[in-house]
Amino acid sequence: NAQGEDVVAGIRTPQPINRRQKASPQEVSLEEAMPEVYKELEHYCKVLERHFRDMQDVEFTIQRGKLFILQTRSGKRTGLAALRIAVDMVTEGLIDEEEALMRIEPEQLNQLLRPVFDPEEKEKARKEGRVVAKGLPAGPGATSGHVVFFPSEVEERTAKGEEVILVRVETSPEDIRGMSAAQGILTARGGMTSHAALVARQMGKVCVVGCEALRIDYKNRHLEVNGRLIREGDYISIDGSTGEVILGKLKTRPSEVLEVLVEKRLKPEESQSYQIYHKLMQWADRKRKLRVRVNADRPEQASLALALGAEGIGLCRTEHMFFEGERIYAMREMIIAQDPESRREALDKLLPMQREDFKAIFRVMRDLPVTIRTLDPPLHEFLPHSDDEIAQVAERMGISFDELKAKVESLREANPMLGHRGCRLGIVYPEITRMQARAIFEAACEVKLEEGIEVHPEIMIPLVGHVEELRDQRRIVDEVAKEVFARYGVEVPYKVGTMIEIPRGALTADEIAQQAEFFSFGTNDLTQTTYGISRDDVGKFLRAYVEKGIWDFDPFVKLDTKGVGQLMMLAVEKGREVRADLKVGICGEHGGEPSSVKFCHSIGLDYVSCSPLRIPIAKLAAAQAAIEENGKK
Amino acid sequence: NAQGEDVVAGIRTPQPINRRQKASPQEVSLEEAMPEVYKELEHYCKVLERHFRDMQDVEFTIQRGKLFILQTRSGKRTGLAALRIAVDMVTEGLIDEEEALMRIEPEQLNQLLRPVFDPEEKEKARKEGRVVAKGLPAGPGATSGHVVFFPSEVEERTAKGEEVILVRVETSPEDIRGMSAAQGILTARGGMTSHAALVARQMGKVCVVGCEALRIDYKNRHLEVNGRLIREGDYISIDGSTGEVILGKLKTRPSEVLEVLVEKRLKPEESQSYQIYHKLMQWADRKRKLRVRVNADRPEQASLALALGAEGIGLCRTEHMFFEGERIYAMREMIIAQDPESRREALDKLLPMQREDFKAIFRVMRDLPVTIRTLDPPLHEFLPHSDDEIAQVAERMGISFDELKAKVESLREANPMLGHRGCRLGIVYPEITRMQARAIFEAACEVKLEEGIEVHPEIMIPLVGHVEELRDQRRIVDEVAKEVFARYGVEVPYKVGTMIEIPRGALTADEIAQQAEFFSFGTNDLTQTTYGISRDDVGKFLRAYVEKGIWDFDPFVKLDTKGVGQLMMLAVEKGREVRADLKVGICGEHGGEPSSVKFCHSIGLDYVSCSPLRIPIAKLAAAQAAIEENGKK
Repeated sequence: NAQGEDVVAGIRTPQPINRRQKASPQEVSLEEAMPEVYKELEHYCKVLERHFRDMQDVEFTIQRGKLFILQTRSGKRTGLAALRIAVDMVTEGLIDEEEALMRIEPEQLNQLLRPVFDPEEKEKARKEGRVVAKGLPAGPGATSGHVVFFPSEVEERTAKGEEVILVRVETSPEDIRGMSAAQGILTARGGMTSHAALVARQMGKVCVVGCEALRIDYKNRHLEVNGRLIREGDYISIDGSTGEVILGKLKTRPSEVLEVLVEKRLKPEESQSYQIYHKLMQWADRKRKLRVRVNADRPEQASLALALGAEGIGLCRTEHMFFEGERIYAMREMIIAQDPESRREALDKLLPMQREDFKAIFRVMRDLPVTIRTLDPPLHEFLPHSDDEIAQVAERMGISFDELKAKVESLREANPMLGHRGCRLGIVYPEITRMQARAIFEAACEVKLEEGIEVHPEIMIPLVGHVEELRDQRRIVDEVAKEVFARYGVEVPYKVGTMIEIPRGALTADEIAQQAEFFSFGTNDLTQTTYGISRDDVGKFLRAYVEKGIWDFDPFVKLDTKGVGQLMMLAVEKGREVRADLKVGICGEHGGEPSSVKFCHSIGLDYVSCSPLRIPIAKLAAAQAAIEENGKK
Repeated sequence: NAQGEDVVAGIRTPQPINRRQKASPQEVSLEEAMPEVYKELEHYCKVLERHFRDMQDVEFTIQRGKLFILQTRSGKRTGLAALRIAVDMVTEGLIDEEEALMRIEPEQLNQLLRPVFDPEEKEKARKEGRVVAKGLPAGPGATSGHVVFFPSEVEERTAKGEEVILVRVETSPEDIRGMSAAQGILTARGGMTSHAALVARQMGKVCVVGCEALRIDYKNRHLEVNGRLIREGDYISIDGSTGEVILGKLKTRPSEVLEVLVEKRLKPEESQSYQIYHKLMQWADRKRKLRVRVNADRPEQASLALALGAEGIGLCRTEHMFFEGERIYAMREMIIAQDPESRREALDKLLPMQREDFKAIFRVMRDLPVTIRTLDPPLHEFLPHSDDEIAQVAERMGISFDELKAKVESLREANPMLGHRGCRLGIVYPEITRMQARAIFEAACEVKLEEGIEVHPEIMIPLVGHVEELRDQRRIVDEVAKEVFARYGVEVPYKVGTMIEIPRGALTADEIAQQAEFFSFGTNDLTQTTYGISRDDVGKFLRAYVEKGIWDFDPFVKLDTKGVGQLMMLAVEKGREVRADLKVGICGEHGGEPSSVKFCHSIGLDYVSCSPLRIPIAKLAAAQAAIEENGKK
């Protein structure tokens, strides 16, 4: 028989206890070999489980047919097993729903939601030495595709029905379209909060980042990894739950939960894991007080989120809408416009496209609130950067290279994160805010009139640090609303609020709340500014900080309750002093991280907003927070 | 005689009242022309002045030898006159010292401190007709330089060591960097509160505004003034205390106050303005509670500051010490070092140089506290950037272009302001902090042993946002101190403290105070992070913010008491809860701005620290704050 040390070291493969566990008919289980001893073992295990009210890891030995129980402790459960055990124990009356909810690590729900590689295929790949590298598991799930190095080429290939893995040293906002079209994203650099990781989680893409073994050669369009050469077009597979990079193509399976909820290829009663998921979510929904919204920019994300129980959109970014297809050119015309008149002309081209985007989202979300953020990134993100690209774009736009180059130069910033972005754009170029407000209200009026949908848009002004910024932008939004409602002869209830994402916003929340009907904490930027640390640059010292124990955790992953959280508390307090019914939420990445969700509960937020597949995780965390508050642990 | 309207419009030049005012013997004064009326006028003026307890602007008319007093009001005083009047009125017993102090705008002290043109040279220029125009005296002082019309070109020229006068029709926030680099600023339009005037005063730049005689032709890069053509690159001189614009270059002399205090070319009794200055400072010193320190990195700055009454150094930046001469090469060796060993070797070359720097400063400051900040800027600031420079430096360092280029690339940051700098450097490279601590303590021990000076170094760790950062750096400093004291057989009292310059530092001040013996607010960075605004990029939207009334003032010039100030208050409170005797100061540029100094007084700071020539201004503001607090206004 296998002895403990050997099993742990992986030298011996343990033998099965009972018939159910047998992997092949050749194996002989304890149940078959020593039925008496097996029965005795089964009995003691039940006693122990009942006593400790938890699944037990029982160590035992059998000497000359006699059973000795050596040790017992609460079992380490991974994935599905843990969930099944918790639900089973409720069914068996061993624990109640609350206790079941408390026993699950919210992140374990990922196992129910993400696609996985076919286990046999993966084992085969491992045996053949095709698992060639390991990076950080930044977007759970599993996928295969052709290697493509240039985001611009991803769409061409996917348009032809190809599956593509985008492989980059690192990604940047210009790559969004390629990232969105790709099946998966693999980068050589960057941590769990790098651009690639954040966008992938937001998009629900399989993603492995910081895979430092990759030597990417853009020029020759190939990459080398531990002595193996992978050319553009070769198939690779990435497992975003483990970080593994595998040569060749592997079959995947969607999670059963999504097969039931979204694909509808399985019936609820056909899937055990769906039933577990469903029960857990029912219980969580009964306990939690926090509402859970989704960060979604596209109708299909919104649909997925609704299937997973989203109660609204907490963050609909509008900038992604400007990158797609022809729009980027209208956007660029707007940027190089010399005066408000030609800027308005360019914006007029964008208006109908943006209006259709909003209509599509409103149709999915129906009467649920949809929080739309006005344009946020600095304008230089929409312009080309290399001389080659500038030349290309200039020709396409019918302007000279020098003119475009000069514009690119003039928009360059020393610290773009702290630059001309957020509401600072809408203040300098009120035409932009006006166009966006018009697109939102026209879309709302049209779906109401044409389809009878009562939408609830909430317009969110980003990066506000001074009440006058919000007053300025709010005035534009209100004016446009009035004008559009008069034109359509119909009214749509709407709110205007702000992101609280820079310290001064939190510190002067009492003033800002006079102009804001809601606050939404943008904890990504709030963490950057509160720490004075750029997320793009933290990699240079993060390792030393963690190794030396200066930080217990990465504040970009888990909310820093002491510093950032203190500002949040202050803002909630000051805001509600002025406006008792102020709605307050969070739409930073932390909104889907369990410990951060619990903190949000504790300071009285109304909702958290996160990427679609993290909704169940946030719900569970919210339920746990409510249960903990009631003192039942 | 000149009538009111004509005088104001500048059409008639008024005639002198008495002999003293006569500009030339040809003029006839009232005193000479109508001695009776003059005596009568003198009498009533005294009565009025005594009654209103302030200098009066008296409007009168004389009809057929009879004096009519038409109107009287408190006089508008500029510069030296205001100071003299205030001091005189104390001497005459009309007002007391406090009232005199309260009547002076602290910025007016600039009149006493800024350089003037050599009187002989100026007289010569006048005779030669080179005084070609007169504008408003917006930034006191006198300077000469090459005419440059475009702010972007100012930096290029000053980088080559040229003196430059920036000449514009008017200035706007985008021009800030050019204005900062120029010796002086001259504009054709704008009043005493125009952008150019405000910025120049804050920066301590010589400035003449509203010089309407200038006809500036940007396209042909020349200007015409009263028939004289001045081309770009020609020398001009501007007197910011009188508003005069003079062709050619003129020698300048330090102000009389500095001639007495620093140059010692004048005796106190020989200078009226020194006597005024001295009296005001005596009074201010008696009233103020805030101590005033200087931001100084070099012995000569420290000497100047001492002469102006500095009570210590509040900020001695050490990075300047790494740029000079050969040092930059040792610094670069340190940066490209592949391992701690070679990094230490490079640092060993810097150690003796840095130690000598500190000894020189300690010798000047003697027993006054000297706050030394450890290395702050990101390392890429020490490396070349263009390919040409990289090639040159690589050759000089005996490494390949590619190696150096790769290093430059690897250190590049998306947001340097939020990047790998401040204590984050010392944490990743503890050798740097160790070398700097060693240089400080060895210098302190040596001047003590060799020269009997009891120095008081205060080691300041920058950019702390988490107590563990400070604990880490403090441990190194304490270890080095112990080792050096043992080696020299002598001890030097020292303190270790931190800058509070990112919001998290302020928010967790209670934790940080456990490791810090003092705090110094770095309000430049604290303003950037609290607002989420990069000072280098704010130009892109500052104009719109000011025009639209979103900001009442530029928070980089005047402390934002509502947001940034709230964090400061919080930090003082939390810090002193933990450590009652915590010393707290400010070393950002706000430390020399009067309204900010008053705020610092109100929240209980121990000292402000500013550039040398702002020390008297800070002292006066501090005295006013103390007087205001006592309710005497």
